[in-house]
Amino acid sequence: MVHYKLIYFNVRALAEASRQIFHLAGVPFEDVRIQRNDPTWETDIKKSTPFGKMPVLSVDGFDIPQSAAIARYLSRKFGFAGKTPEEEAWVDAIVDQFKDFFEDLRKFIIANRLGKPAEEIEKIRNEIVNPSRDNYLRIITGILQKSKSGFLVGDNVTFADLVIADSLVTLEKNGFFKKEDYPIAANHQLKIHNLPKLKEWIETRPDTQL
Amino acid sequence: MVHYKLIYFNVRALAEASRQIFHLAGVPFEDVRIQRNDPTWETDIKKSTPFGKMPVLSVDGFDIPQSAAIARYLSRKFGFAGKTPEEEAWVDAIVDQFKDFFEDLRKFIIANRLGKPAEEIEKIRNEIVNPSRDNYLRIITGILQKSKSGFLVGDNVTFADLVIADSLVTLEKNGFFKKEDYPIAANHQLKIHNLPKLKEWIETRPDTQL
Repeated sequence: MVHYKLIYFNVRALAEASRQIFHLAGVPFEDVRIQRNDPTWETDIKKSTPFGKMPVLSVDGFDIPQSAAIARYLSRKFGFAGKTPEEEAWVDAIVDQFKDFFEDLRKFIIANRLGKPAEEIEKIRNEIVNPSRDNYLRIITGILQKSKSGFLVGDNVTFADLVIADSLVTLEKNGFFKKEDYPIAANHQLKIHNLPKLKEWIETRPDTQL
Repeated sequence: MVHYKLIYFNVRALAEASRQIFHLAGVPFEDVRIQRNDPTWETDIKKSTPFGKMPVLSVDGFDIPQSAAIARYLSRKFGFAGKTPEEEAWVDAIVDQFKDFFEDLRKFIIANRLGKPAEEIEKIRNEIVNPSRDNYLRIITGILQKSKSGFLVGDNVTFADLVIADSLVTLEKNGFFKKEDYPIAANHQLKIHNLPKLKEWIETRPDTQL
């Protein structure tokens, strides 16, 4: 049997969709979580990764870096990447749109991590993340309004659904999202996170802020 | 015959790899270039795009947004996406690594576009782009040093080769890259840009700073 090992920090962020793909597919994997203050991250682990970053997926020892590349690789293996070339392209586009938004959200995350003054953090929240979130959720809502299946692309769950639904968890936990303000996105999240295999995982997984 | 239309600003940046895929494949496409000062961009075109951004690929009227999603879609159609799932994942990862670097380079591009003071632009150059470029080219050089074919992934040209080789054009034109400082990356660029169908395109295409 193929041995899958997914290595990341102990957060959802850029690896959670891939973890969820394993759970949806019912495929066992090693869910390695490096604590952010683990000194071996800087001294050892970082250097052992292909690009000096995590997540990394190890497939029988063959390492794949970059979160979207990992999620797409697993999704194509296990059937969550879209059914046609056009569906696959839209799944990819939605995930990259999330990543564009995440670049802005990351400014808030890093300012917090560095212990920047509250005033500076609020400025990032109001001037960078809030407008970017509005644009991001407007796009997602628009896609869902046109969807007949309730999924973002086609008639089945794809890794785009996983990425978007998880992003709302992070937005909500960090004061950027209230379900009543974005009911269409919130309903989509509920639909995805109620998929039985995901529901079970979400109820038992480590609870993290990001 | 399928009608392909690729819509972007009159720059290489995030659409050039897709243009090059068409040229390599010998597939005709409409290369639509919107001037940045075209007033219809803000009033009309922007609203007509799926995510309010370009590039957009239109395939018989079906629109696909996001540069990497477009390049991957075309590459899988025309045979430049990698030969195995593992090759495909590495192609994707390299392209996403470029996109991570481009987020930093974009700060320099935007500061220039907004006419920021020379001092501020130099600060971005030295403190953000130069270290990020060093990391980016260290990764690319490392991959090429291990390559037996001279291509970034596998034995054939992929869209990762196109993205990386084009990025060096932009870096060179903007004072971030000298061939003698990065001979391995420079040789790779030469190999790619000497592919006959690409060479012909590069000699005749619009010459742009980005």
